[in-house]
Amino acid sequence: MDIRTEVKKMKEDSPIMAALPLETRNQALEAAAKALLENKKKIFQANKEDMEAAEKTGLGQAVMKRLKFDEHKLDDVIKGIQDLISLPDPLSRIQLARELDQGLELYRVTCPIGVIGIIFEARPDALVQISSLCIKSGNCAVLKGGKETARTNKVLFNLIHEAVMGCGLPKGCMLQAELHNEIDELLACDDCVDLLIPRGSNQFVRYIMDHTKIPVMGHADGVCHIYVDEDYAIEKTLPIIVDAKTQYTAACNAVETLLVNRKAAAEFLPEAAKALSEAGVKLRGTKEVSEIIPCEIMEEEEFHREYLDLILSVKIVEDLEEAVAHINTYGSHHTDCIITENKAHALRFMQLVDSAGVYQNCSTRFADGFRYGFGAEVGISTGKIHARGPVGLEGLVTYKYKLFGQGQIVGDYASGKKSFHFRDLDKEAGL
Amino acid sequence: MDIRTEVKKMKEDSPIMAALPLETRNQALEAAAKALLENKKKIFQANKEDMEAAEKTGLGQAVMKRLKFDEHKLDDVIKGIQDLISLPDPLSRIQLARELDQGLELYRVTCPIGVIGIIFEARPDALVQISSLCIKSGNCAVLKGGKETARTNKVLFNLIHEAVMGCGLPKGCMLQAELHNEIDELLACDDCVDLLIPRGSNQFVRYIMDHTKIPVMGHADGVCHIYVDEDYAIEKTLPIIVDAKTQYTAACNAVETLLVNRKAAAEFLPEAAKALSEAGVKLRGTKEVSEIIPCEIMEEEEFHREYLDLILSVKIVEDLEEAVAHINTYGSHHTDCIITENKAHALRFMQLVDSAGVYQNCSTRFADGFRYGFGAEVGISTGKIHARGPVGLEGLVTYKYKLFGQGQIVGDYASGKKSFHFRDLDKEAGL
Repeated sequence: MDIRTEVKKMKEDSPIMAALPLETRNQALEAAAKALLENKKKIFQANKEDMEAAEKTGLGQAVMKRLKFDEHKLDDVIKGIQDLISLPDPLSRIQLARELDQGLELYRVTCPIGVIGIIFEARPDALVQISSLCIKSGNCAVLKGGKETARTNKVLFNLIHEAVMGCGLPKGCMLQAELHNEIDELLACDDCVDLLIPRGSNQFVRYIMDHTKIPVMGHADGVCHIYVDEDYAIEKTLPIIVDAKTQYTAACNAVETLLVNRKAAAEFLPEAAKALSEAGVKLRGTKEVSEIIPCEIMEEEEFHREYLDLILSVKIVEDLEEAVAHINTYGSHHTDCIITENKAHALRFMQLVDSAGVYQNCSTRFADGFRYGFGAEVGISTGKIHARGPVGLEGLVTYKYKLFGQGQIVGDYASGKKSFHFRDLDKEAGL
Repeated sequence: MDIRTEVKKMKEDSPIMAALPLETRNQALEAAAKALLENKKKIFQANKEDMEAAEKTGLGQAVMKRLKFDEHKLDDVIKGIQDLISLPDPLSRIQLARELDQGLELYRVTCPIGVIGIIFEARPDALVQISSLCIKSGNCAVLKGGKETARTNKVLFNLIHEAVMGCGLPKGCMLQAELHNEIDELLACDDCVDLLIPRGSNQFVRYIMDHTKIPVMGHADGVCHIYVDEDYAIEKTLPIIVDAKTQYTAACNAVETLLVNRKAAAEFLPEAAKALSEAGVKLRGTKEVSEIIPCEIMEEEEFHREYLDLILSVKIVEDLEEAVAHINTYGSHHTDCIITENKAHALRFMQLVDSAGVYQNCSTRFADGFRYGFGAEVGISTGKIHARGPVGLEGLVTYKYKLFGQGQIVGDYASGKKSFHFRDLDKEAGL
């Protein structure tokens, strides 16, 4: 059966999945965790085979590390599942309860999105993470993992799928796509896949975004900025920049560009250069910057670059407005920070910068669902539609309007025979 | 200057637009209303010329009616602007306020989406309506109207644009695209247009959706269903079906298909046929239906059809589950209703039907922002991402995360030196 046919069948199961009570969904998560723990040797064996095969193809150490699924990764995903179980139900929440007229009651109630396609590279733990997020939120998940961990993915998928079916989840709650050409088949399923979540490199995410009509939640680039305003406190500034650049260089929320107010440049840049060079960071800057500190001279167009490495772009700006214009032009609308002791400047910066996260005096690395206290993270979105920034479980739900009547017709309201009185009802009272 | 260049400039103005206080936005709306009223002769004259030119091309009466902009339409749009002014500010609402750790405060605050492209056919009042919604919500609007009312649109645009600039709105707050080829140029602006709202025929909306990477909010088809359960009350049922079909046949929320439970069919169908034929409705049905009541026999595939006319498809189903499966397969996820006196059946139907609106015992024609008490309607969305169903002003806003720190770095939390305490702050206290 091709992927399209299977996803169509899954779509038919999705209302059943959506209607499952919280207890069933939580039991399914318990069962999945138990199955993974009890079969860990099988998982590690499959992963060992994947790793050996990958090693022969000469993959780099960084990628090899991401392919690995060991005790440590297992602990992480089990902890993740347990956290999810303890989170409140994202479904059946009443967002609006209103009597439109006597005996005509409108409720806006959260419900699952339906069928979610997840396409991920390399990390097999992503399979466990995302499928458990989908189970908790009542969504069906089509999973397509990277070919390097095909054996690990297959074992993980089968263990989870069987465990949750044993708890009463429909067969179509999960589907694994295994062949590479199935990615393009999946991207063409815009009539039966409601949302795509890609996880992987920039080019990979960009490819997904450019080749589908299905809405995509995620981010390609993470070109984050720190702007040092004239009124900065040096003792805060240096640790923030070093942390934002070096604490985890491969992260999307690592800083890529440092903007410095002209009034601060002569005094601040030499201090920054010293701290950053001690931290192993290589600087690149405009000609003007190179006249103050040693750095490689770069072209304006290169400010679009996301290094994901110990390299930082540096530029001098006239004022806050120029900093904002630079960020809105060259940034990726992810997370940007102003270093200032002036609250009015901070508020102005936050209002004008068109990014999911706008920060004052702290590291851009805080942009993360766990650090925001969301309990679970679906991903980080740089889109502005639906969900923006770090996305928790609520990014996997939508809502529907339920209207209960007693025979009301619109003709009576159009003719003036009846009229609406719009009275809010007690949401807590429920349906 | 081509559209792309102009929209890029507009994008630069969008943070200024987003930062305007509510008073300025409301003053701009007042000024726009005043300008329209004071220059109504100019508007009517332009519309007269449009209508005369349109008449020569032999357009039908229904279309001609939509082209018209007269005293009545002017009253409507002025009333719409006044209603908008009285609505609370959709911006700067604090959706989340949380202290992550001492001195590290996170706020999620609503803000405009940015640049919104509106492409509409025929109705010049849509220009006024949508541009005022964008002004209220701090968004920049690119407007492309139908060629039939080019003169009217130009006068309306210039009056509003000049009036709002006089109140301090940036020049780039509004832009008019006048040439037909500019539609495709606009559809390609996915790096500078954040959202597209198309208003027009199914084919028109479908074309927009199929030819852009920009998110589109709206709906193409409106194939709405009424399912008559075995436990129906005839005195409610007939008026609901007649209202849903005939009260305004051209509306997207008019019913197109009637599903009848087999147990009810023999008794109910003759009554329905009588009431509907008296209301001028022509019936089409499966062979089985034609054996009970006179109707034109139709094929299964035709249940996808949206008639927008006094025609109704009829089918007999075994039970609620078959009704749901039919609706989820052939419907457009817009609005679907069950007629039943059985509350459990109604709740089950509402849970399983994957539509923006799921109703019990009332007309599908209630699916409308004004009838839901939203005060203003941006449109109706059949998508599940971002906004679903009738969309009020909140459909034109997104949010950003503002994080205020005092030098915090992620390294301290990763190393365990510090830890988060996640304490909710008082939202009302503001920033």
